[in-house]
Amino acid sequence: MSTMDYNAAALEMHRAHRGKIEIKGKVAVKTRDDLSTAYTPGVAEPCRRIASEPEAVWEYTSKGNMVAVVTDGTAVLGLGDIGPAAALPVMEGKALLFKEFGGVDAVPLCLDTKDPDEIVAIVRAAAPTYGGINLEDISAPRCFEIERRLQEALDIPVFHDDQHGTAIVVSAALTNALKLAGRELAEARIVINGPGAAGTAITKMLLALGARDIVVCDRRGAIYAGREGVAGHKAELASLTNPRGVKGPLAGAMKGAYVFIGVSGARLVTPEMVRSMAEKPIIFAMANPTPEISYAEAVEAGAYIVGTGRSDNPNQINNVLAFPGVFRGALDVRAREINTAMKAAAVRALADFVGDKLERGHIIPGAFEPGVADAVAKAVAAAARESGAARI
Amino acid sequence: MSTMDYNAAALEMHRAHRGKIEIKGKVAVKTRDDLSTAYTPGVAEPCRRIASEPEAVWEYTSKGNMVAVVTDGTAVLGLGDIGPAAALPVMEGKALLFKEFGGVDAVPLCLDTKDPDEIVAIVRAAAPTYGGINLEDISAPRCFEIERRLQEALDIPVFHDDQHGTAIVVSAALTNALKLAGRELAEARIVINGPGAAGTAITKMLLALGARDIVVCDRRGAIYAGREGVAGHKAELASLTNPRGVKGPLAGAMKGAYVFIGVSGARLVTPEMVRSMAEKPIIFAMANPTPEISYAEAVEAGAYIVGTGRSDNPNQINNVLAFPGVFRGALDVRAREINTAMKAAAVRALADFVGDKLERGHIIPGAFEPGVADAVAKAVAAAARESGAARI
Repeated sequence: MSTMDYNAAALEMHRAHRGKIEIKGKVAVKTRDDLSTAYTPGVAEPCRRIASEPEAVWEYTSKGNMVAVVTDGTAVLGLGDIGPAAALPVMEGKALLFKEFGGVDAVPLCLDTKDPDEIVAIVRAAAPTYGGINLEDISAPRCFEIERRLQEALDIPVFHDDQHGTAIVVSAALTNALKLAGRELAEARIVINGPGAAGTAITKMLLALGARDIVVCDRRGAIYAGREGVAGHKAELASLTNPRGVKGPLAGAMKGAYVFIGVSGARLVTPEMVRSMAEKPIIFAMANPTPEISYAEAVEAGAYIVGTGRSDNPNQINNVLAFPGVFRGALDVRAREINTAMKAAAVRALADFVGDKLERGHIIPGAFEPGVADAVAKAVAAAARESGAARI
Repeated sequence: MSTMDYNAAALEMHRAHRGKIEIKGKVAVKTRDDLSTAYTPGVAEPCRRIASEPEAVWEYTSKGNMVAVVTDGTAVLGLGDIGPAAALPVMEGKALLFKEFGGVDAVPLCLDTKDPDEIVAIVRAAAPTYGGINLEDISAPRCFEIERRLQEALDIPVFHDDQHGTAIVVSAALTNALKLAGRELAEARIVINGPGAAGTAITKMLLALGARDIVVCDRRGAIYAGREGVAGHKAELASLTNPRGVKGPLAGAMKGAYVFIGVSGARLVTPEMVRSMAEKPIIFAMANPTPEISYAEAVEAGAYIVGTGRSDNPNQINNVLAFPGVFRGALDVRAREINTAMKAAAVRALADFVGDKLERGHIIPGAFEPGVADAVAKAVAAAARESGAARI
């Protein structure tokens, strides 16, 4: 189907079903005894147990499998700040994928406020209901502060998928692409275009995995300390990256680079820019729905490996490969957070999952390959235990 | 089963299933096309539609069938202030009953704050996700202010079930009991013991239905203006009730009364007090799990009709008869509120549902009689349309 067809089909499907998720009981309520066990008077007993022994909430309620998908609707898909109600179809979609791919029960929580203090206060207060918090489509740089403050305040994982889900899948794809190209991550010159939520998280993830030469670009070009417009989280990025002191526009930064990772605007990369890169260039052009350079153009210009966000090209870099398994693993061990070790484990599990099938057109599993979320979950749970983030 | 048995069975059931509710997708996600319709890129289309036309959120999302069951855990069953996590089994139970009896999708929202300002701010902010708000187990008098402020702020129904659900079922039961006793509500001397959430709402509902002689008692006896300890919502109750200026303890207030409604403490009513009432006394002893006087004792003392909250006695006065149908009806017409006319319609529908089967041991439908919620929903929806509360 073309995008136009998807639009029409999506509209029709959403209308026919009035959304995409519903609640289902896990127990029957057909008799008086059922009612007395699931509700009064019997329900008082698990309540008492939890009141006297707080950890029992994981045993006697749905908390341990329930995730809130929280947004303020400020950065929805490519649509921008469309507000909490208009964001609801995306949050329901996320909840649908959480269940389908990870067996995780997720519910939308669309908030009618953009104030980081209020968002933090609301999610903190609502946290007893959930085993984890998935932040979604909250604009940068507010998303960084909101996530940090929530994770500091809460003893359940807080995970901004636009950041870390993307970073995990990109890092796994890059791991395999470099393997095919015969390059080491530590030696790879990497250019990342777009210092927003995704670009920032990808940068930090790759650094944690051993990358040493990353140049992050915004609309003005390479980011470095002291440049005009480099403050806040861009200043932090400047302090972590650009060891060679690259300055000037994206085109210049790409000269001689091994890897280009685009998470920003459509059609920013020309065939000439690809040709200016080092041998066997790797191009991840993930702007949605129109990539920085099309798959066909990038290949034509000599790219060795190309990944995009599109399902109609090879190597689709798709968050659905990460978040269901990451949360599945975290919930399985009642993790207190999703730390760097757990994210790195997810990267390795995703990269390794490709196994013998690794080739230039298949550097990352397909969204529907059976077992992906399970492999990610096992790796994340093990890393949670090793790193001390697990309760059980 | 005895209460002890229910406790053990409830503990086992809650543990075996890890709570009582889960999320279920309403659409399949088995193919790339499914993914492109339910999620990106297709999902952008309903988002755009809602952004440009806010009412479309009712058409393209789950909002219109989704209710938040909100608590701060301060007044849970007979357990009191056990906190938001320990309240979760009750909220899940409520969600289970919403679905089972009313086809309503409900999710717990247990809040870790007791500050009415914060609770109002949180629920206001979270409201875009929901078609209605069910407040649950929030202590009086805070619940009155929280409900009022939320309903003023929001354009979806806000309904404190401990108040209005109870008031609807009690009023329906009393309507039928008075019919059997050959008395008019307007002439009935009614004593209500317990001026909390339930007692206050019952008082207001009965007044709205035409009652004129209600005496509300607290631990110090009859409530009247100027009495010690009569302030806040008790002062409001005093201004609405007690036209004969009754003073003194409950036992005195009950002399010559036609109706006793207890929503407070166990074993407060003696056989002597029942014998002191008018002919054909009606006793609703609803303290849970131990009523103000047992069914057997009340009958033995000459009560004409007895109702309790217990499923092992006739005439169980059970909220599950009201809230699923009330919300079903409100959601079906996308109501902005659940107003007095809608609640009164629910009372009539419930009372009328008994029909030809009306007798002293059957003044209210059983919880599992098929069609109850549907009858209530139809009446509530019609009243919403007539009173201007309906969107469609």
